[in-house]
Amino acid sequence: MSAPPFVDETVALLERTPRVLQEMLGDLPEGWLGEPDTAGGWTARDVVGHLISAELEDWIPRAEIILRDGTSRQFDPFDRFAHTERDRGVPLTTLVDRFVELRSRNLTRLNEIVRDDADLDRRGRHPEHGEVTLRQLLATWAVHDLDHVAQVFASLAASQDGAVGPWKAYLGILLRRDAAGSAG
Amino acid sequence: MSAPPFVDETVALLERTPRVLQEMLGDLPEGWLGEPDTAGGWTARDVVGHLISAELEDWIPRAEIILRDGTSRQFDPFDRFAHTERDRGVPLTTLVDRFVELRSRNLTRLNEIVRDDADLDRRGRHPEHGEVTLRQLLATWAVHDLDHVAQVFASLAASQDGAVGPWKAYLGILLRRDAAGSAG
Repeated sequence: MSAPPFVDETVALLERTPRVLQEMLGDLPEGWLGEPDTAGGWTARDVVGHLISAELEDWIPRAEIILRDGTSRQFDPFDRFAHTERDRGVPLTTLVDRFVELRSRNLTRLNEIVRDDADLDRRGRHPEHGEVTLRQLLATWAVHDLDHVAQVFASLAASQDGAVGPWKAYLGILLRRDAAGSAG
Repeated sequence: MSAPPFVDETVALLERTPRVLQEMLGDLPEGWLGEPDTAGGWTARDVVGHLISAELEDWIPRAEIILRDGTSRQFDPFDRFAHTERDRGVPLTTLVDRFVELRSRNLTRLNEIVRDDADLDRRGRHPEHGEVTLRQLLATWAVHDLDHVAQVFASLAASQDGAVGPWKAYLGILLRRDAAGSAG
């Protein structure tokens, strides 16, 4: 039995994220890692912690609810800040390793539970959005990866905010930090 | 002779970018690669082409001008769209390989030409910004990498803009595309 093409394409992205984080963050000097992406935002450690939380509590648990209970059981709410206490004092490299392991296990599980395109059209009930499909959940999993890895990059860039001098005017990744600050 | 710590830390970031692009883009299914990051923006191919242009015409040539000519010679203007014609029809994988090779060569060259902290304080003349230091140029090189790799991620996310359904409301990487469109 082979997975639907949509699942294969989504997994192609999902399996790259751990490798990208390992390449970027493994042994990166501490000087890059101290700033959040925006004032009051997240450092690289926070982002990896949040990705761990989502592997534990969000994507696969919700996929299982959709396939087992459909819309009869609302998803449990997801705690976006679960990492704050859980990961206090844990080194970044340990967090990345933990994410790599959880993602690998979850992609194996995904391929076990999704059989065909009809499964992708099955629905669940989101506490705020109402009815959503498994296909939307999986697309969101991948885009959520891209969003948060880009956030890691913004946090690394933040450490050089003052160092780039007048070139800052050309660097959207830094200008957006200021815009986020003034909007907040 | 060892490079100044600032150079080592900057190189630590610069040497990761080719590996990140290889991990993310190597053999990624075409379905992820067709959209620009914003309306009228750049696809992953465009971004890698632009990074190639900067390896050829921007960072090292400008560092050499600073160290050889100081402020007596203004930098040559940099063409942000040089890739459009040059790379027409070139496969993405070939572009990534080309970038990897140029970056490796340029980091070797950087370590040859920068000797100490005094070199980092030397100045050049930017056509628009006026006087800038070599230190600012090198910090900008690294943040420019982060900015454009984040742009690649935004272009990949764009391919799923319609697929995420109501979750789009939580996904800044997609919401910023719309904001950029309305601002333009």
